Amino acid sequence: MATLDAVLAHIDQDLDHSLDRLFAFLKIESISTDPKFKNDCRTAAQFIADDLTSIGFASEVRPTAGHPIVVGKSNASAGPRVLFYGHYDVQPVDPLNLWDNPPFAPRIAELPGGRKIIVARGACDDKGQVMTFVEACRAYKTVTGKLPLPITMLIEGEEECGSKNMFEFLEKNAEEFSLDLALVCDTTMWDADTPAITTSLRGLLYEELTLQCADRDLHSGLFGGAAQNPIRVLTKVLAAIHDDNGRITIPGFYDGVADLPADVKADLEALHLTAEKFLGQVGLKIPAGEKDRMLIEQLTTRPTCDVNGIIGGYTGEGAKTVIAAQASAKVSFRLVAGQDPEKIRKAFRAFVEARLPEDCRVTFSGHSANPAIQLPFDSPELTKIRAALSDEWQRKAVLFGSGASIPIVGDFKKFLGLDAFLVGFGLDDDRIHSPNEKYDLKSFHKGIRSWARILDKLAA
Amino acid sequence: MATLDAVLAHIDQDLDHSLDRLFAFLKIESISTDPKFKNDCRTAAQFIADDLTSIGFASEVRPTAGHPIVVGKSNASAGPRVLFYGHYDVQPVDPLNLWDNPPFAPRIAELPGGRKIIVARGACDDKGQVMTFVEACRAYKTVTGKLPLPITMLIEGEEECGSKNMFEFLEKNAEEFSLDLALVCDTTMWDADTPAITTSLRGLLYEELTLQCADRDLHSGLFGGAAQNPIRVLTKVLAAIHDDNGRITIPGFYDGVADLPADVKADLEALHLTAEKFLGQVGLKIPAGEKDRMLIEQLTTRPTCDVNGIIGGYTGEGAKTVIAAQASAKVSFRLVAGQDPEKIRKAFRAFVEARLPEDCRVTFSGHSANPAIQLPFDSPELTKIRAALSDEWQRKAVLFGSGASIPIVGDFKKFLGLDAFLVGFGLDDDRIHSPNEKYDLKSFHKGIRSWARILDKLAA
Repeated sequence: MATLDAVLAHIDQDLDHSLDRLFAFLKIESISTDPKFKNDCRTAAQFIADDLTSIGFASEVRPTAGHPIVVGKSNASAGPRVLFYGHYDVQPVDPLNLWDNPPFAPRIAELPGGRKIIVARGACDDKGQVMTFVEACRAYKTVTGKLPLPITMLIEGEEECGSKNMFEFLEKNAEEFSLDLALVCDTTMWDADTPAITTSLRGLLYEELTLQCADRDLHSGLFGGAAQNPIRVLTKVLAAIHDDNGRITIPGFYDGVADLPADVKADLEALHLTAEKFLGQVGLKIPAGEKDRMLIEQLTTRPTCDVNGIIGGYTGEGAKTVIAAQASAKVSFRLVAGQDPEKIRKAFRAFVEARLPEDCRVTFSGHSANPAIQLPFDSPELTKIRAALSDEWQRKAVLFGSGASIPIVGDFKKFLGLDAFLVGFGLDDDRIHSPNEKYDLKSFHKGIRSWARILDKLAA
Repeated sequence: MATLDAVLAHIDQDLDHSLDRLFAFLKIESISTDPKFKNDCRTAAQFIADDLTSIGFASEVRPTAGHPIVVGKSNASAGPRVLFYGHYDVQPVDPLNLWDNPPFAPRIAELPGGRKIIVARGACDDKGQVMTFVEACRAYKTVTGKLPLPITMLIEGEEECGSKNMFEFLEKNAEEFSLDLALVCDTTMWDADTPAITTSLRGLLYEELTLQCADRDLHSGLFGGAAQNPIRVLTKVLAAIHDDNGRITIPGFYDGVADLPADVKADLEALHLTAEKFLGQVGLKIPAGEKDRMLIEQLTTRPTCDVNGIIGGYTGEGAKTVIAAQASAKVSFRLVAGQDPEKIRKAFRAFVEARLPEDCRVTFSGHSANPAIQLPFDSPELTKIRAALSDEWQRKAVLFGSGASIPIVGDFKKFLGLDAFLVGFGLDDDRIHSPNEKYDLKSFHKGIRSWARILDKLAA
């Protein structure tokens, strides 16, 4: 404990220098999606590689078909081998006129109420978050002369444009990176005072279907009443997916879906996420999911179905009395642990086919089919990380699910066999991907301290 | 009867000259929708006015804001005052390369099996049909020195582009044209051997609705499961319009809808219109309307509802995990006698509103709202016209409904108080509006004879 106290004290004393280093990183215009910024991306990669070298990592800037990947290895200690993942690339900055200050001129500002914030593109996503971990490592190195664990850093430059080369890189170099656990710093806290670990990510099954009835568009005066209308069939099929209780009616859809452990559910319940707070921000009031589930379950740990797009017939201005030959829809399912995407794809297609009248044919095309990710709730590492976070924030860390998918986490599991622990210090109001992106100074400072505590617990 | 026999005999003898006059008319490129053909339209109007003058009509080419309207009046006789309506304008001819011969070089051709046909743009629609009536008048004039009835001709030049100026003209000159009955020659026979009178036209109510849930598009990972999806609501609402028997469930929708008189229904039944014949031509097999109604009723004398267009969310290539803020649909109803469009509009809107969850708002915009037209089945004129047609074709003339609307017929009723009797000699294979438009020589010849018989009966 004496070591940890010393490391934490150093972190506090060194905060201004930590900010200087972060600001230098934030000034690099590493927008990955725009080829104009190719050299800036290279500069950002070199910046982080050099910084890692300065604290004892053996660093390399490894080329890919796109922007390079930074790999840093430090094997000075014993203990579980940690893979840390983050990214040095950032989102584009337009519309530039909505920024109060230039996006690559980082500064400290103060919100009404006194919260200090770091404002710049990438302040949170993901440069600020990556540096919380790097600064924790630096503090250990300064105070103890070494890192408390064997750590491999994997910092990519294409997260904001699809991570395509990262997936290839992981698959090709699976042996090199198959360590003991992964840490990722790219997510949010529950709120400004409550730390969180993202323990599940929903999977995604995405299907597109096109119905065809007549072999041509028809005049609704001449054929109306007798010709099958594919929009009518499509609305019948899609309307049948949810029952009146918001439950999905596709046979077998909930097979394998387990309830949350009682303690995890009780913790979630205690968060009192209200519709007013969560849905109110987008003009809604009433949760539309399964009526017997809490809002937070509907959003994160229960599977869903949404029609993401629908089109058929005449959709221009005014009126046209047409009966379309075709109508189509895009339908996606957020999946949770226990659900097999391919089994659900089959069940969905059978569900549609069973509802087609004789004069209607369907063609399907499949897009994504990724299973959900679920950390085992009884993992000893999870317990340690949770305890470390609770120590730092003096509040029990929340274990919650993310409603969305983070493909790289699936790939850690698939190619490297690693569970990834997602710990981040972002907040819902950080405006990532938007003008005036920010990161709370408190997130940065206590984020560094949190990682120091986590490394301490994991090394114990 | 001696007079009629003489008139019919003259028609037979004079057929070649009748064809010469029709061909002269068909050579005029009176495409109304394209301003390039403005002078040709004027030429066609003058042609028909001059021809009417030559058989004793007092003719005028009356200007409008668009193409002129030809009015011809002959009040030489006693008897019911007839208004005859037709049009001298034609559809565009593209794609020109699909015509076997130039569209304005009319010719006689022979189909495999020996049917002789007149091929040209306008051969059927509507120059050929107009000339059946003009030639019948000419035969009377030649044989008896006068027309058998007071006849007013009303031949417009904008039917193929919306008749906008015609509607104004009727409204402005309502008194001048409020005669005793209207005859229109712009429709089809039942088949090549069976004459028909169109005794009803369905009305049209056209509504557009837009549903809005959240105040912005949402990410389906972050909000999926809890945010109301307007496409889900829209499909539920639209799917509820038809029950499993194809009946429309909107309360009050069938109020005022009468069954056909038993004899009319029996006649329709005797026509044996099969799904194979009617739906087979567009790749369908099973009538999709009310299960307890004959196909021909579903198509013509029963009210319907079709979704003509639907759109919401992402409809481009590939996948986007969006929950749309809005979704919208265009919905139209074909109405029959007894249905009040405005009452049904209200009932439809109430039906939608009753199905919206709290987080969903709807905006409606109304397009058409035209009532159906129904000739009284006990009209003495209908009986006379039917008898005349049956005499000529030696087959009971069919009384049938058109599934579509013909706005001008509504205006005859609305502005002039006139029932319009729609008698035409077109056939389903006439390719009106398409390349190689044709009119059977038999349609033309027996069409002229039919009108002679009709005028004879009406004058009796």
